[in-house]
Amino acid sequence: MNGAESLLGTLAEAGVEVCFTNPGTTELHLVGALESSPRMRGVLALFEGVATGAADGYARIAGKPAATLLHLGPGLGYGLANLHNSRRANSPVVSIVGDHPTYHQAYDPPLNSDIATLVGWLRGPVRRPEDAPGAGPDAASTLAAALEPPGRIATMIMPADVSWTEGGVIAAPVPPRTAPTVERNVVTEVADLLRRGEPTALVIGGPATREAGLCAASRIAVATGARVLVELYPSRVEHGAGLPSFPRLGFYPEQVLTQLGGVRHVVSVGTKAPVSFFAYPHQPSCLVPPDAASHVLAEVGQDAADALVQLADLVAPATPPAVAANRRPTLPSGPLTLENWPEVLGALLPERAIVIDETISSGAALAAATSGCPRHDVLLQCGGAMGEGLPLAVGAAIAAPDRPVVALEADGCAMYTISALWTQARERLNITNVILNNHSYAILREEWRHFDPLPSGTDPDRSTLLRLTDPQIDFVRLAEAYGVPASRATTAEELATQVADALARPGPHLIDAVVPALA
Amino acid sequence: MNGAESLLGTLAEAGVEVCFTNPGTTELHLVGALESSPRMRGVLALFEGVATGAADGYARIAGKPAATLLHLGPGLGYGLANLHNSRRANSPVVSIVGDHPTYHQAYDPPLNSDIATLVGWLRGPVRRPEDAPGAGPDAASTLAAALEPPGRIATMIMPADVSWTEGGVIAAPVPPRTAPTVERNVVTEVADLLRRGEPTALVIGGPATREAGLCAASRIAVATGARVLVELYPSRVEHGAGLPSFPRLGFYPEQVLTQLGGVRHVVSVGTKAPVSFFAYPHQPSCLVPPDAASHVLAEVGQDAADALVQLADLVAPATPPAVAANRRPTLPSGPLTLENWPEVLGALLPERAIVIDETISSGAALAAATSGCPRHDVLLQCGGAMGEGLPLAVGAAIAAPDRPVVALEADGCAMYTISALWTQARERLNITNVILNNHSYAILREEWRHFDPLPSGTDPDRSTLLRLTDPQIDFVRLAEAYGVPASRATTAEELATQVADALARPGPHLIDAVVPALA
Repeated sequence: MNGAESLLGTLAEAGVEVCFTNPGTTELHLVGALESSPRMRGVLALFEGVATGAADGYARIAGKPAATLLHLGPGLGYGLANLHNSRRANSPVVSIVGDHPTYHQAYDPPLNSDIATLVGWLRGPVRRPEDAPGAGPDAASTLAAALEPPGRIATMIMPADVSWTEGGVIAAPVPPRTAPTVERNVVTEVADLLRRGEPTALVIGGPATREAGLCAASRIAVATGARVLVELYPSRVEHGAGLPSFPRLGFYPEQVLTQLGGVRHVVSVGTKAPVSFFAYPHQPSCLVPPDAASHVLAEVGQDAADALVQLADLVAPATPPAVAANRRPTLPSGPLTLENWPEVLGALLPERAIVIDETISSGAALAAATSGCPRHDVLLQCGGAMGEGLPLAVGAAIAAPDRPVVALEADGCAMYTISALWTQARERLNITNVILNNHSYAILREEWRHFDPLPSGTDPDRSTLLRLTDPQIDFVRLAEAYGVPASRATTAEELATQVADALARPGPHLIDAVVPALA
Repeated sequence: MNGAESLLGTLAEAGVEVCFTNPGTTELHLVGALESSPRMRGVLALFEGVATGAADGYARIAGKPAATLLHLGPGLGYGLANLHNSRRANSPVVSIVGDHPTYHQAYDPPLNSDIATLVGWLRGPVRRPEDAPGAGPDAASTLAAALEPPGRIATMIMPADVSWTEGGVIAAPVPPRTAPTVERNVVTEVADLLRRGEPTALVIGGPATREAGLCAASRIAVATGARVLVELYPSRVEHGAGLPSFPRLGFYPEQVLTQLGGVRHVVSVGTKAPVSFFAYPHQPSCLVPPDAASHVLAEVGQDAADALVQLADLVAPATPPAVAANRRPTLPSGPLTLENWPEVLGALLPERAIVIDETISSGAALAAATSGCPRHDVLLQCGGAMGEGLPLAVGAAIAAPDRPVVALEADGCAMYTISALWTQARERLNITNVILNNHSYAILREEWRHFDPLPSGTDPDRSTLLRLTDPQIDFVRLAEAYGVPASRATTAEELATQVADALARPGPHLIDAVVPALA
């Protein structure tokens, strides 16, 4: 058994089932090992950002890591943006990066670079086995490190000679730590705070946005009058009829300060205290109101859902949660608007759907339109690096082949990782991709108007650098080029027909939904 | 004047004319300054790798740097692979990366990251102005640093508040250093070596692969019998009728050792001593034969062309160079092969063309088929990070709007930066893109066969992870989706007609040339 086989064999033994890859020469023995392994599925991406975004989507739905396999420093470079998003989502990922043999690096061939420096940017642990017998144990340790709560990008740099040399061994799994529970006295302190009756907001995130946490938060809200807000970009929210639905924090500072207006206490649960996504002149970075105190019920990485349940049992022992009724919007008609396209989705969303939301400026009405739909999961892009939606859909669909995936993607975002469509077609994934196409970087026009002082150009609407109209991108042809059937919708009726069609047929589909830009 | 205006104004004052960008919120004041600047052309890319690859192509043809403007760490991440290629090409680039204000970073918002760590991977200098008055001087210093011989990636991290704050000043240009000339005694020592008459090879690269260096090298070869070889991936080679044409170093170790067989001295000129691109079991990394001595005429960053001229004047004072005759191949016919597609190019290549060669496994016959064409420049991808061809074409076409650009691009490579086609269409660039489409990662199949021991899969031809057939990518639709007229060629006649058509019409075109994979 060579080092490559021992690396992948150790991961497979410990339950890793998928490897998303865009490989090169230094990874060929790993490719061989992957192709001859019955227990690990190799999924080819044409671009590294697709592989890393897919690993994020996979981890969020499967609840365990996938591996990624990339080609030296430049390959990792192309994968970094979505690894950044994964890091912000606290998704566990086993990132394998091939490298030259150490003896070869001394000659600094063209592809040589300091891969560990790039890995350092991700703030996760890194290992580089020195020989074939070390590959298996390092793989086991890397997997355990990825699973370290709340979930990390753990990297293994694999020199090619370690891959091709015999002497590898399958290493025993290293038991991962589970998320620590919150200490009882912390819960009782927050309970005492809530009992004082001063205006209080709970900001929940991480593992607290799934059923157990949402229901506990709702019981607390009903019993104590506390407001509950969800962090701006949660990694996975359970949503729909029978579940509590809470507003997410706003994007702009003044929105959040309004949401938290009058509050005397802000309690963070599985997330950090609210912070402005970007900085703006004359606006604060920290969005806890100046006259409010900040508290922590559960740190990121602690068992936030359990903490909420403990808290609810103290302050709302007999209170049931307030949940959304089973109620869909009626199908709208007329030209597509930012209000009616979410209603089409809400009217048609199937049971157990996984919704990817990278709608950016086009999605404000989505949550309300889908709160009474059959229960579904919503995955958001957590790190602000645009272009994760289509890859997230790949990973989610591979993690849950029995569930329909609906990827809602802004046109500008889609351009960073568009070849994800090819992987969707190749793997026959049941994904309905809806491009919310306003032919612009509309969010940047919106941001431009938000500045005081304004940028020096006279008018964001005249900025040619924010406009994607010359030429217009034809998403129907793009999808067809990658083997994905596609159609265009300009009215609610067309969108409804096309979404229903796409959901009824196996494999991926794409709908180019032409929407107006945010006014 | 705000900091953003002073940054771009300082660069424009010093002669920087183009900024390739994919911006975000933290760069909006720079976007405003760019759009209101009459002296700097803003070129929008839909993906950062297009912007950075274009800056590389621009620098190689214009002989001076462009700026790039990217969005925080993740945006730089997407740009890194082609910055790596730029670094290996020794192209000067002024890389501007927007960032949060320093006061905002303390709150670690989602897009926060340690940008300087990523920059460190590029091994170039970095500056981060603390206030608006510092932006202009830092821009002047960054430009001078980029121009430091042989050319570097010099980075300026620009906090958003420095951009938006008034108080910026246009700074005076910092005079850059010119490439140092090689000391006379080094030249005379190599002259003495050549006069001894022992078998000697000159390996030339960097600035030595343009007319002056090529002609001097040829005179030396004719007069002394020395072999001349060009480095494996030179950044810019002048080629065609009236110029000497030398073989490039082979890709595989055994090829290079054959090329250098019997040689007692290897003299490097503007490049490093030959090194294997990848490591293979039982093969050496250093490709200077064991019984040959290694010498340096000109280090990377020295004036290698001048050194060759000095040397030629010593050892071949009256010898003219041996140059290629004006002679094109005749137009071939029949299904496209790896031998005949370059003949079509050779038959049709126009005067003063710029040829981008990222043909990977399909281009072995190109140099021979074009050596008698009208003089042209050839740009290769120097760093081994696949997917720079289409962006290089963007940059070259913007640097030389009066010259036809022919981008020869492997299908797998095209996938990393395919949205370069949109920028080509938007900027109406005269680029003939020819996709050498073998529906596979053929180079990896070739590499697979090269290993001993082989990877554990039984047969590279059966490897599904190296095959791009399911589904086949339709490059004609892809190009049309991005606004680029396109056609498909399966025979030499079709390719000839389509290349002639594309060259005759303004703006970009794409030809999907279906070729067999390397056997």
